[in-house]
Amino acid sequence: MKAWRLYEYNQPLRFEEVEDPVITDPHDVVVKIGGAGVCHTDLHLIEGIWAETLGTPLPYIIGHENAGWVHAVGSSVTEYEVGDPVIVHPVMSCGKCLSCRSGEDMHCVNLKFPGLTVDGGYAEYLKTSERALIKLDDHVKPHEVAPLADAGITAYRAVKKVVPLANPGTKVVMIGMGGLGHIAVQLMRELGNSDIIAVDINDERLNMALEYGADEAVRADDGLVSQVQGLTGNEGADIIVDLVGSDQTHADSMQMLRKGGSYFVIGYGGELKVPSLNMINNEFNIIGNLVGNYVELYELMQLHARGKVKLHATQYGLEEAGDVLKLLHDGKINGRAVLVP
Amino acid sequence: MKAWRLYEYNQPLRFEEVEDPVITDPHDVVVKIGGAGVCHTDLHLIEGIWAETLGTPLPYIIGHENAGWVHAVGSSVTEYEVGDPVIVHPVMSCGKCLSCRSGEDMHCVNLKFPGLTVDGGYAEYLKTSERALIKLDDHVKPHEVAPLADAGITAYRAVKKVVPLANPGTKVVMIGMGGLGHIAVQLMRELGNSDIIAVDINDERLNMALEYGADEAVRADDGLVSQVQGLTGNEGADIIVDLVGSDQTHADSMQMLRKGGSYFVIGYGGELKVPSLNMINNEFNIIGNLVGNYVELYELMQLHARGKVKLHATQYGLEEAGDVLKLLHDGKINGRAVLVP
Amino acid sequence: MKAWRLYEYNQPLRFEEVEDPVITDPHDVVVKIGGAGVCHTDLHLIEGIWAETLGTPLPYIIGHENAGWVHAVGSSVTEYEVGDPVIVHPVMSCGKCLSCRSGEDMHCVNLKFPGLTVDGGYAEYLKTSERALIKLDDHVKPHEVAPLADAGITAYRAVKKVVPLANPGTKVVMIGMGGLGHIAVQLMRELGNSDIIAVDINDERLNMALEYGADEAVRADDGLVSQVQGLTGNEGADIIVDLVGSDQTHADSMQMLRKGGSYFVIGYGGELKVPSLNMINNEFNIIGNLVGNYVELYELMQLHARGKVKLHATQYGLEEAGDVLKLLHDGKINGRAVLVP
Amino acid sequence: MKAWRLYEYNQPLRFEEVEDPVITDPHDVVVKIGGAGVCHTDLHLIEGIWAETLGTPLPYIIGHENAGWVHAVGSSVTEYEVGDPVIVHPVMSCGKCLSCRSGEDMHCVNLKFPGLTVDGGYAEYLKTSERALIKLDDHVKPHEVAPLADAGITAYRAVKKVVPLANPGTKVVMIGMGGLGHIAVQLMRELGNSDIIAVDINDERLNMALEYGADEAVRADDGLVSQVQGLTGNEGADIIVDLVGSDQTHADSMQMLRKGGSYFVIGYGGELKVPSLNMINNEFNIIGNLVGNYVELYELMQLHARGKVKLHATQYGLEEAGDVLKLLHDGKINGRAVLVP
Repeated sequence: MKAWRLYEYNQPLRFEEVEDPVITDPHDVVVKIGGAGVCHTDLHLIEGIWAETLGTPLPYIIGHENAGWVHAVGSSVTEYEVGDPVIVHPVMSCGKCLSCRSGEDMHCVNLKFPGLTVDGGYAEYLKTSERALIKLDDHVKPHEVAPLADAGITAYRAVKKVVPLANPGTKVVMIGMGGLGHIAVQLMRELGNSDIIAVDINDERLNMALEYGADEAVRADDGLVSQVQGLTGNEGADIIVDLVGSDQTHADSMQMLRKGGSYFVIGYGGELKVPSLNMINNEFNIIGNLVGNYVELYELMQLHARGKVKLHATQYGLEEAGDVLKLLHDGKINGRAVLVP
Repeated sequence: MKAWRLYEYNQPLRFEEVEDPVITDPHDVVVKIGGAGVCHTDLHLIEGIWAETLGTPLPYIIGHENAGWVHAVGSSVTEYEVGDPVIVHPVMSCGKCLSCRSGEDMHCVNLKFPGLTVDGGYAEYLKTSERALIKLDDHVKPHEVAPLADAGITAYRAVKKVVPLANPGTKVVMIGMGGLGHIAVQLMRELGNSDIIAVDINDERLNMALEYGADEAVRADDGLVSQVQGLTGNEGADIIVDLVGSDQTHADSMQMLRKGGSYFVIGYGGELKVPSLNMINNEFNIIGNLVGNYVELYELMQLHARGKVKLHATQYGLEEAGDVLKLLHDGKINGRAVLVP
Repeated sequence: MKAWRLYEYNQPLRFEEVEDPVITDPHDVVVKIGGAGVCHTDLHLIEGIWAETLGTPLPYIIGHENAGWVHAVGSSVTEYEVGDPVIVHPVMSCGKCLSCRSGEDMHCVNLKFPGLTVDGGYAEYLKTSERALIKLDDHVKPHEVAPLADAGITAYRAVKKVVPLANPGTKVVMIGMGGLGHIAVQLMRELGNSDIIAVDINDERLNMALEYGADEAVRADDGLVSQVQGLTGNEGADIIVDLVGSDQTHADSMQMLRKGGSYFVIGYGGELKVPSLNMINNEFNIIGNLVGNYVELYELMQLHARGKVKLHATQYGLEEAGDVLKLLHDGKINGRAVLVP
Repeated sequence: MKAWRLYEYNQPLRFEEVEDPVITDPHDVVVKIGGAGVCHTDLHLIEGIWAETLGTPLPYIIGHENAGWVHAVGSSVTEYEVGDPVIVHPVMSCGKCLSCRSGEDMHCVNLKFPGLTVDGGYAEYLKTSERALIKLDDHVKPHEVAPLADAGITAYRAVKKVVPLANPGTKVVMIGMGGLGHIAVQLMRELGNSDIIAVDINDERLNMALEYGADEAVRADDGLVSQVQGLTGNEGADIIVDLVGSDQTHADSMQMLRKGGSYFVIGYGGELKVPSLNMINNEFNIIGNLVGNYVELYELMQLHARGKVKLHATQYGLEEAGDVLKLLHDGKINGRAVLVP
């Protein structure tokens, strides 16, 4: 099949012919890709900032945001047949460790993460396991929902953690209205009850955020901290949801979080620094957020089926991945780009 | 009355004659001090690291960990009479703002904090409000329980946040077995079900921690991270409770926290630094902890009355405060020192 | 002043001239009534089903759902001035017991409940305490919001307990679309994410429920259990919110609740019966719900200010209370009736 | 193999030769029984009170509280080998439905429950699935821990639900100090912080409860409600844990539960009746409790390994099951009886 592989950090991926994936475990499933979302993490993988953490041998196929149709199944697979349209939870989890038994698939001690630790979905076919699949309704096309498999559930998991705090009268700042952010803002409107202050550097994205339910839109480059202080009566935000995660957003967030407030880190790349005197005097909570689990993907698909969350996605051919990554790097993708083989 | 006042940062307090406090609000209560605990925060106040945060005009009387007897009451005070033995919750809260109405006294928007923002308890008398008081059983002496008013409830509040995570089979690292730590370790044994790894640089304190219920004792200066990794099968601690809060303990904690783990910051003075990639990939939670609220002090007093938490405290005369602060600074106080006028 | 008093159970109230209420405690406030909601509990009080529970000496003024303007204040009242428009939380709580300190005003051990245990709001003036008041925005008229003071926060408190269970894909049955129900259904749409099945015996109310966000409307008299089983794939409802509380709704609910489901009882009057084998085999939760606390009223007013909850209310003159109670008894009030002196 | 089968309700079981169980699914495991606990539910099964609920075709082997050694494994079993000592979680769950994916094995939509819906453990061998197994430490004998598989985790799950309410100063009444109760009281002491009032009709059991950590012991036949009112300052118990579940204990509990209190139903057989006026005025919670899930069994085994929970168990030969059931029915078993083939 055709696929894009990462051979060397900070170099372009290579688009080439590779072996099709094959079933090796009775619970394996091969999925014919219908759509593969293009994520900032893909840029970070190419930059090598995950290299030490993951230790994945090069080359391998990236792409962790996938949907398609069942193409082949192992002998123990009981719930899916060839041809079934499916969205693919991003990880292969063992189902036997305590994390899996608690529902926390992302903390599986035997985790495989296609697109990060094994071959992913910038390709025609992808190998995963039965545990990762959720069947799509017949009227839903895989490429329409692929970004829910990662951007979607990452936003959903974070917002679900926020919700118990998002009481009427509170204020939440959401930084970054891109691929994750445009989903997160809709989920915050739907699940929470805070007043929402959307932040970005791009007016088009801010307008989209307002359409999707934000109450205020703030340009980050015009003095973010002072604007937020102005909008919160100088008390700061009760909640900050940071979908960017740069040195700047970390520092700003520590300046504009209210006493007793909670800071949810979802975007990454920067370093967070805070004196512990501030941590204790203000009784801050700082919460890291990873991809959602299987049940969270199920719930998100239920919201999507009811029209409560819309994806702003643009399709590209699989062969365009190189160009798309460049557009994403340059901040020229609004919403999410999806590769369609 | 006699009292110790802070005139200048990084200079000794002055012991001198000052005016007795007087009732000015109908809800005010003047307490005759029976015991005033000496806390690391008192050292930090003298060092001036709180100066900018608090902006308290000098000179003022420090001391925020108080118990004694009711000496005078305002006209709206209904629950206390002169002579009642009481422990004093550390803050004067308004009872009317949303934080107070939610039970979170420490987040009161009209907070006064005797010993930090107004005159405190290194003195013969202290002014507070009715809302701060809890009556003591007749057989309990104020000087025996004074440190519960701050060290005690700070430990209690933090441990209560830990408890839902402290399931059987998990491991908690507790750093610092001093004034707060020797209480916190008892509470963790009583309220939680994790295996407890106590950490300090002082063998005497570590032995006390083992007596109080720790399962393991680790000397911090012998390679803390590697020892904890050894005791956790190289997976790291599920929970870390940091009662020190130095640059070193912050850095070590980020190295020995398990995926999905939670880091509770109680001690302070250092700077916490962590790349957001680690925050999200490991889905860390970092939780700042302030003094407990009134209900938490009530609950702690119930535990104390049932013999579930013991204070390791040494009495000194009020006039010895200067010397005691020096001993504390030099790490020569085990448990807690209490000033008795 | 003019007021309606209950002299004898199961007899009409008497409309008569009574003494104006006067300040007796420094925290007292007298409110000039702008609107007093008429509640099913008022019918239950007249029927005497509360007589043994409350033991209130007759005669007294009923009416516990009040808003108006501050008319007189005690000497310790600091936050309100004569003329301020206010909504009145239904109880006078002491602010000193552990329940109050935890924010749970309704569980105050020194509770006074105007309209149930002391004189209420079917009158020109009402005595309450400063702790009960929330200031209204200038553009809000007291009679427009009075029913939020009891029907509103009862619905709000119950729905807030439901929300952590109301995940996408679950189904909630809401029984009774009257005074509480028409608010509850809006709150469930706004705060939760279940599919909502509204139940009533009145088509007009069911249509209103659909407009307010219910997904399905079911006539209770057409075989409620079988209809709900049909709408839930024979698995039963994950959640039932019972705003009626008759023998029939209790029995039906135990037949149509899903394994692991939760049944929230808000309406009352019937007897709940269930074999404990069913309780344990199905792991049912049955949750009683009382009036919301002060913070819940604050949050509800925030939602109202943002247009997220609408009241369907009809105004009547204070002198019409007797007729209005009859209409309510006969099921002829849709939404809520409000008495305006 | 030899096994006891239920042929007819309200008739003695028959001890007879039956076919050994065989592997039919790749995830199946056959366990050689080392010990099978004898539970009140076994009596209830024979009485037929489960007949309609379960619809299990007769005859079948009862016994749902099992431990032993792995005897045979299906082709997809990866974590266990023949000879491994194991405790057997009571149900075979599918691992694929939403309940399983959330960790709630007991709510599996494809549940098989050996001993209730398929053949159980009053036998030499039992068929279950890999998902049900937890390996025992080498020094633990299966017959020593078998009752933890059901009585243990039922008590553990209930106590874990109680814990967030069991704050210092609260009072919990625990009714029934038998097989479940003697475990539950230890867990309540270890996990919670309420004062514990143990209730039974048998002095020997009450003495055992006091040894295991109860603060008070009350004979149920001496006017339970009035004794509990006396021990709670006439306010009632904050929490009731009912391990009996008769008409009497249900009625008593509704009389001695405090305003805002929670009633946990674990034992069963009676009918619970309560006017909804009481449910709402007192804001009661009534919580049904089923067997714990897999993670709860894991956690309980951790507590057991640390000596925090002791089983009071007596061994009998498998062939004695008929006599043992009679002793249990007559209230002559203290702690738990275990059948050893």
